[in-house]
Amino acid sequence: MACPPWPKGKKLVHLDLKGAPPRVGYLKKLIHLFSELGVDGLLVEYEDMFPYEGELRLLQNTAQPAYSREEVMAMQEFAKSRGIEVIPLVQTFGHMEFVLKRRPMWGLREVPYCVGTLNPHKEEGVKLVMEMLRQVVEMHPGLNTLHIGADEVYILGEGEESKLWLASPGRTVEQLFLSHVTKVARAIKEKWPHMTIIMWDDMMRGMSQDILRDSGLVGLVQPMLWDYTPNLDVEKTVSLLEKYCSAGMTDLWTASSFKGSTSVYTCVPSTQRHVDNHLQWLKVAASVSAGVNLQGIALTGWQRYDHLSVLCELMPVALPSLATCLQTLIYGQFSAEAQSKVTEILGVSSVEVEAMLSTSAGDSLFPGRRLAELIVELTSLLSSDEMRFFDNDMFVRGWFSPHHRKTKMVTPLITMQIHSQASTFLTTIQQKVEAVREEMVRFYPEYTVKEWIDEHVSPVTTPLQRITADIRACVKEMVP
Amino acid sequence: MACPPWPKGKKLVHLDLKGAPPRVGYLKKLIHLFSELGVDGLLVEYEDMFPYEGELRLLQNTAQPAYSREEVMAMQEFAKSRGIEVIPLVQTFGHMEFVLKRRPMWGLREVPYCVGTLNPHKEEGVKLVMEMLRQVVEMHPGLNTLHIGADEVYILGEGEESKLWLASPGRTVEQLFLSHVTKVARAIKEKWPHMTIIMWDDMMRGMSQDILRDSGLVGLVQPMLWDYTPNLDVEKTVSLLEKYCSAGMTDLWTASSFKGSTSVYTCVPSTQRHVDNHLQWLKVAASVSAGVNLQGIALTGWQRYDHLSVLCELMPVALPSLATCLQTLIYGQFSAEAQSKVTEILGVSSVEVEAMLSTSAGDSLFPGRRLAELIVELTSLLSSDEMRFFDNDMFVRGWFSPHHRKTKMVTPLITMQIHSQASTFLTTIQQKVEAVREEMVRFYPEYTVKEWIDEHVSPVTTPLQRITADIRACVKEMVP
Repeated sequence: MACPPWPKGKKLVHLDLKGAPPRVGYLKKLIHLFSELGVDGLLVEYEDMFPYEGELRLLQNTAQPAYSREEVMAMQEFAKSRGIEVIPLVQTFGHMEFVLKRRPMWGLREVPYCVGTLNPHKEEGVKLVMEMLRQVVEMHPGLNTLHIGADEVYILGEGEESKLWLASPGRTVEQLFLSHVTKVARAIKEKWPHMTIIMWDDMMRGMSQDILRDSGLVGLVQPMLWDYTPNLDVEKTVSLLEKYCSAGMTDLWTASSFKGSTSVYTCVPSTQRHVDNHLQWLKVAASVSAGVNLQGIALTGWQRYDHLSVLCELMPVALPSLATCLQTLIYGQFSAEAQSKVTEILGVSSVEVEAMLSTSAGDSLFPGRRLAELIVELTSLLSSDEMRFFDNDMFVRGWFSPHHRKTKMVTPLITMQIHSQASTFLTTIQQKVEAVREEMVRFYPEYTVKEWIDEHVSPVTTPLQRITADIRACVKEMVP
Repeated sequence: MACPPWPKGKKLVHLDLKGAPPRVGYLKKLIHLFSELGVDGLLVEYEDMFPYEGELRLLQNTAQPAYSREEVMAMQEFAKSRGIEVIPLVQTFGHMEFVLKRRPMWGLREVPYCVGTLNPHKEEGVKLVMEMLRQVVEMHPGLNTLHIGADEVYILGEGEESKLWLASPGRTVEQLFLSHVTKVARAIKEKWPHMTIIMWDDMMRGMSQDILRDSGLVGLVQPMLWDYTPNLDVEKTVSLLEKYCSAGMTDLWTASSFKGSTSVYTCVPSTQRHVDNHLQWLKVAASVSAGVNLQGIALTGWQRYDHLSVLCELMPVALPSLATCLQTLIYGQFSAEAQSKVTEILGVSSVEVEAMLSTSAGDSLFPGRRLAELIVELTSLLSSDEMRFFDNDMFVRGWFSPHHRKTKMVTPLITMQIHSQASTFLTTIQQKVEAVREEMVRFYPEYTVKEWIDEHVSPVTTPLQRITADIRACVKEMVP
């Protein structure tokens, strides 16, 4: 079904820097490509890669240096020169793992065992958030739009102070949520009266129109509705938009996804899956009533599900998906025309990164194309059951069980065969990993490369290495 | 299709003692049941459970005591009293792992890295084999049939001395095999002229009729053809029998299987699979020409694939299969009648151990029935993908990768959820293991119970234990 093109508002690309922060040179190439693709703005989630200063210095990533002030400024300059706006996203309630994981901040958690959620009752908590915002705003001269996060505020209401607060008659967790967000938003407006404030909508989805109308948020924030699923429920989403609108929040944003929403450990995205999500959003936009004032859509590209989960798809592997999702929005459908626009811009034969062959020399059209190809190849290797479940191999289960490792009584003929198979797998994987490493380090810091390998390769190679070492130790006992 | 009942000769049950040797009390119960089921004889493979003496004392199992002379005699007495003959099986060429794994015997291997195959050129090798046979024969008063194994003589011809031997013109590995077997068989006939000698046929399958006729084995040994597959090729097998017959070896045996031939680590046999194998053997018997003098069939019940592989199906779990295979031979088909004979004798509702419910109190009809039931339950637990591939769980891959274990930075909410799931799995398994252990120790030595658990349970529990310990260590670093 063809829809009208994305009706109005901005097309933002989400730049999630809470993992795999691109080197600045690569960032510039990406921004250049984004502008070619028709992007209006960047929703930048710096997280621990922002050069926080003073007392907040401890929020900076310790494993790899955060971006410098100069780099943050240069990125903005470059974006501006391409006509691209920068909107920073700073979490102010949930998903504050990068803050609350630091020992000096432990006391600001809603509950000790939840690293993401801020205790909304402590004055220091609000002060902390405001200081983070101040530093970020000041490093973005001329800023007029800010995203304050506020999604997935897990476990809210379960802290000791919250329980006390909730014990007063008529108080609910919904109100507790709304009161903190209102407090932060008011403080922002007080400091920067011209600032447009965006926030994620998910904590408000279950709230009634009345609760929302009376919340104090009307006129203060613009909710951003997110749904990343390929089978997004159009009717339900339209109703949700209408509900916010009827409650008085008429300026609304939407958020789709071009990567980082398939599974927590996905390394290679399916373009079709993400295009399907955008086709649903097009239907939503075509169905919503005129009262809803759509401000734009953010194409999210999560680099992790949260600060403490593994890295999912890296940017290079997701560029065909991003380009196709954008063209789908522009054309209003996933047409042959939209597809050939993508393959032409990127210089590849297919919109699916797994299927594409390059049709141009070098990677000037598609920055990181070689890395994307290598990751596709490595991922395919790593997902082979034979390698991933090697411990479950018939020969291992039959002739090299924990009993054998303990007694060191093995049959050399078969165990050496297992050893040889495991070694072949290891060599095959390691050769490909070396190629990936060599290429990845051009676009990402060393630490990211190490982390990515530890997360995606080691689960397969460690058991293979363990088994070869154990076999060598046992065979030694059996053969002169 | 119905065949005539098994035409003639003996129905032997193979008692493989090279793993999980039953306690003598249980052996007697089994022999009693076998006699009820119409068994004529036992093919007993003592291996390292035979009370070898003198210089051969080192062949005895060191982890659990071998049977005593008194036990071996008592077993024979008991079998005799039930009209059951005992035929010992002593390996004399291949599968001598229990001998050649001992350091003082290392020099007798054909090649250093193959623990199973005897070097056929050394006089000490033949002397060793003859001394083993002497001790076994002497502990079986009145013995007139002996099985000398000689299957799967891997790597034969690759030892230094064999290479020299083979360098003489016209010499082949086939002749090397035949010359050793002939030497051993002649020595047996010299010592015990009345002795019938059976041997496995597989090393002779590819040999021509002429080679076999001229081998010197004609009139000396009776080959036993083995095939354990449910889809045994009837035509091919008949031709093979005819070939041996035409070469002059007219007295022939067959060998089917009621357990120990599905996969090296199978714990629960499918009766249907083994019945299918017997139905094929019935067709072979019905098709073979009159010249072939079938001596009988051995229903093999392997306890391991070889001396150094894991334990496969224990006897109690395989009794429904054994009973059904025997009745299939007797009735000439897997008829309702044959099946109700089995369920009546064993006091259960089904011929499949996985499906059976007991229809009688106690286990007097079916010795070890409770253990069989418990193993079925535990095996079903252990084969759940959720438990066996827990490391591949979405949450583990996403939030508790090797990177997380290294950096000890984890999200307590999710990792504690993983911990709780792993602990639940462990408790469920351990409770069932305790029940199995308690019951198994009534029928098998302690060491066998430990070994069985190490081989079949530890591959699932060890990773679960590792993950819970690792999570506890990490969460400690994250929560006050």
